[in-house]
Amino acid sequence: MSTVGKAVSLLELFTLHEPEIGLSELARRAGLDKATARRLLMALAAHRLIEQEPRSRRYRLGAGLSRLARIRDAHFPFVRLAAPVIRELSLETGETVHLSEFSAGALLTLHVELSAKANRVNVDVGQVLPLHGTASGIAFLAASRLEAVGAYLEKPLQAFTSFTMTQPDDLVKAIALAASRGYSRSAQGYEEGVHSIGAAILGTDGQPIGTLAVASPVSRVDDATAAGQGEAAVRAARLISARLTGEA
Amino acid sequence: MSTVGKAVSLLELFTLHEPEIGLSELARRAGLDKATARRLLMALAAHRLIEQEPRSRRYRLGAGLSRLARIRDAHFPFVRLAAPVIRELSLETGETVHLSEFSAGALLTLHVELSAKANRVNVDVGQVLPLHGTASGIAFLAASRLEAVGAYLEKPLQAFTSFTMTQPDDLVKAIALAASRGYSRSAQGYEEGVHSIGAAILGTDGQPIGTLAVASPVSRVDDATAAGQGEAAVRAARLISARLTGEA
Repeated sequence: MSTVGKAVSLLELFTLHEPEIGLSELARRAGLDKATARRLLMALAAHRLIEQEPRSRRYRLGAGLSRLARIRDAHFPFVRLAAPVIRELSLETGETVHLSEFSAGALLTLHVELSAKANRVNVDVGQVLPLHGTASGIAFLAASRLEAVGAYLEKPLQAFTSFTMTQPDDLVKAIALAASRGYSRSAQGYEEGVHSIGAAILGTDGQPIGTLAVASPVSRVDDATAAGQGEAAVRAARLISARLTGEA
Repeated sequence: MSTVGKAVSLLELFTLHEPEIGLSELARRAGLDKATARRLLMALAAHRLIEQEPRSRRYRLGAGLSRLARIRDAHFPFVRLAAPVIRELSLETGETVHLSEFSAGALLTLHVELSAKANRVNVDVGQVLPLHGTASGIAFLAASRLEAVGAYLEKPLQAFTSFTMTQPDDLVKAIALAASRGYSRSAQGYEEGVHSIGAAILGTDGQPIGTLAVASPVSRVDDATAAGQGEAAVRAARLISARLTGEA
């Protein structure tokens, strides 16, 4: 991996559940020796992408990331335009709804509205979703150009649960079904016990730029509920697309 | 500069006014040859920190930045907690109010509420404010430990306008005055025609973590107006500090 790749990999070790990590642990997980990790962290800190907690000396993501993200968001206000629609869909369905943006082969979870119910699906901001294991991913592929789908299917498909579709044939059927009805449906393909309905959000050129998904405990969703969630998800995704392209 | 530093410098070329930049221009401004710039951009793109617009092939900040910033913001919700207070202060004063977070020697503008007036000060999200030229910076220094002020004054002080304080003695007086009244006042130290009132926001350990500032056209502010803005700014900054530390 390039030096830049190694440095950015260090940033990617931080999650919602682990916002601060010490030097030894960062080095160990990145597979770097401590001196290299420290040198990379210092370079990132000089540019404010990382910070050191003054007392514990542990590292955390830096204010420079907030700055760059705000410049990006001003230009491409995906989350800002979509968030109220995601909230509304969560209230309407009573379930957790999450928003993802496609980037370099995966879907990045950028906004989550949790269900108010005690028994709900928890999704974390920052989670990276694989395309073949999730309703979001299948909805994304169903809205993509055929050559993009073909390229994706050429790569090995990792199993996340015993329900993950790892055979290209099964995936093609699921993609075709999602394309015909406008939304995808996935049960336990990424995490056991989770049922998801996904819909693609299109950009100005008609190509998909992200997805939204309604995630419910699998016990709560029968076919009628799923169909209702599917229609609501499609309406919400279309509204976000229209707002992004200035049509609504 | 390190390879990582060079790569991050490329990200820092993007602004609110220039969200997309082509390869040659990026290379030129970063002082890199095109091959090196392309190699660094490809490494950043592989980790989603940069994207290429499919048609124009110009580069822009990537979705990975939004993802990392959202993980950071969940852990340290500075902007989310402060934004409503900043909005309220803008309505109360009728002027533009901006919020900054301190990082690696400068203040990063993370949120702006513009005045509703036609004649107003425009401040951009993402702007990096020097400490000695701005009301924000002087308020920050006035709330800092003496050794931090001393260290800052040892470095050369750049002039931004003919009004910028570049003499350590003048700056020490302004800092002392700000420390005694709780807010700073700066006229045209960073940009001509701009009058600013700044107040520091303190973190849990009582040390300043950022600032807010009320920015008005200099023609609109007499001493009484400035004093009123100062009191309102101090109240707002204390409220944000209290919210950050869980006291309000």
